Amino acid sequence: MTSAWTELVTLDDVRAAASRIDGMALRTPLLPFPELSEKLGGEIRLKCESLQKTGSFKMRGALNFLSQLPQAELDRGVITYSSGNHAQALAFAARENGVRAVAVMPTTAAEVKIDGARRLGAEVVLEGTTSIQRKTRAEAMAKEEGLTVVPPFEHPFIIAGQGTVGLEIAQEWPEVDLVLAPIGGGGLVSGTAVAVKALLPRATVLGVEAKGAPTMHAALEAGGPVTLDGTDTIADGLKPVRVGDYTYLHAQDLLDGVVLVDDDAILEATRRLLHDRKLVVEVSGAAVVGALLSDPSLTRGRRVAVVLSGGNLDRSVHNQLNEGPS
Amino acid sequence: MTSAWTELVTLDDVRAAASRIDGMALRTPLLPFPELSEKLGGEIRLKCESLQKTGSFKMRGALNFLSQLPQAELDRGVITYSSGNHAQALAFAARENGVRAVAVMPTTAAEVKIDGARRLGAEVVLEGTTSIQRKTRAEAMAKEEGLTVVPPFEHPFIIAGQGTVGLEIAQEWPEVDLVLAPIGGGGLVSGTAVAVKALLPRATVLGVEAKGAPTMHAALEAGGPVTLDGTDTIADGLKPVRVGDYTYLHAQDLLDGVVLVDDDAILEATRRLLHDRKLVVEVSGAAVVGALLSDPSLTRGRRVAVVLSGGNLDRSVHNQLNEGPS
Repeated sequence: MTSAWTELVTLDDVRAAASRIDGMALRTPLLPFPELSEKLGGEIRLKCESLQKTGSFKMRGALNFLSQLPQAELDRGVITYSSGNHAQALAFAARENGVRAVAVMPTTAAEVKIDGARRLGAEVVLEGTTSIQRKTRAEAMAKEEGLTVVPPFEHPFIIAGQGTVGLEIAQEWPEVDLVLAPIGGGGLVSGTAVAVKALLPRATVLGVEAKGAPTMHAALEAGGPVTLDGTDTIADGLKPVRVGDYTYLHAQDLLDGVVLVDDDAILEATRRLLHDRKLVVEVSGAAVVGALLSDPSLTRGRRVAVVLSGGNLDRSVHNQLNEGPS
Repeated sequence: MTSAWTELVTLDDVRAAASRIDGMALRTPLLPFPELSEKLGGEIRLKCESLQKTGSFKMRGALNFLSQLPQAELDRGVITYSSGNHAQALAFAARENGVRAVAVMPTTAAEVKIDGARRLGAEVVLEGTTSIQRKTRAEAMAKEEGLTVVPPFEHPFIIAGQGTVGLEIAQEWPEVDLVLAPIGGGGLVSGTAVAVKALLPRATVLGVEAKGAPTMHAALEAGGPVTLDGTDTIADGLKPVRVGDYTYLHAQDLLDGVVLVDDDAILEATRRLLHDRKLVVEVSGAAVVGALLSDPSLTRGRRVAVVLSGGNLDRSVHNQLNEGPS
């Protein structure tokens, strides 16, 4: 396990990020979910990053990253290799800063995601089908064209930016007992844990992964990041086959555990958020509610905040959820 | 024109309602809509009553009404004749207060709405197909069984309760230049105008109606409520053929005008809220955004708050919106 950084992100880093992104990222609502709270016998609130600009928390890290680049680097432009929400967030943040943005996306990327990044002004480069291929191409292009690589999770600026989610939860609801955040590469849960554990030391912070993509769970068991042979889940945002070395350091130090949840519960959670709570949430973002549905003991008698990480719900899943019972 | 009341609801009435419903109704978010704000050249915020308990603002009036009934009346129970959101809101408010609730609904009511009211503990009585038939039956049952009628809009307790929507907007965003609220029977727009005009006299307040159901527009032109021969719009919540005598009094005194919007714009607004803003909003609630889309001059250079009155989007419309372009 080798991380380029050895010191964890601090509460001060997160606070500084909050000042930098203030007025650019939205302070999203922490919304009660009365029906599910009553059913599960606790008090559940939803941190609605689905309502964030570009539809996910990724905006926070991208803005925090760009706001710390020297002007010379901004003038040359930025590049990333995430095909999903991070690409759209970086495109938006770059446009706000008048900066060139390139997104290396898989040849198999959904038209709607390619269009989304392009509409926000990003240049889209299609390369291969795996994240390794995309990362390699992005790093090569960065070298050739003098672009700065903005990684999707493995960087202190990104983790501090995503940590503003946890900061807002802790500020708005200091009585919270338990905070759950989903884990893809681990940036969101790391930053969230930094803020919550520093401000509310008695609160529990858990990560949530799909059973078919238990990367942080495996890393914590093995004592370091491991590369899974593959992942199998409907939650595409939770599918990286390996967490970051640096995000792992945070999880190891700050997380109280990782909850695994199956795809049926994730879909049921997405359906309930859509029909009962009137929120369009992507399956990766609904996984935290799936965890509550799967294990009522998490909620009983507690104040629970869950991070709905994004709202970019796949159209075919959206249709499928509409066809079921109301 | 004959109203049972001659004095308009006051800011003090709305403030008292806010105290009564505090902790029962949710204080809903006033959410920015950056994409549409940028497109239309102003600043648009969405008062998300779609995220209110039972999915609409109706909860506010129902709670305010019940909280002012003497215990003897509460003990006997309440009855209403709205088939839609008001029935669900009253059922919920009654359950919270441990009170019997009866909802007289049309024989043609959607199964999902009947189930919704029943799930919240209401006794559902099916009667005829017109609102006159339902109202007559409810008033007869009220007499026979000693129930108190809770009307959907034509009552000072209801108007004061709905006015808490406007109160929250004015408190949270005192810089607002323009507030738009949809008009069905006129309770929401009346209460909203009371609060906004009292606190922010320089702000403009407009009602929004479907072109196919211009009841308040016609009433203001005629100098009193008129009964339309019929209505033709997809926005079922805006379809009453006549506004109230008492809500008309408020509109006449407080509204700066009524904007009419066609069904195409209403559907386009619903689609944008769903796909671009990740909010499930019913077509009647989205009509206010349809008004902004239809007339960009409403927004240009202004701070505009619109009331998304409800989130109970018809399933077939929801599916239809998913099938179009993203």
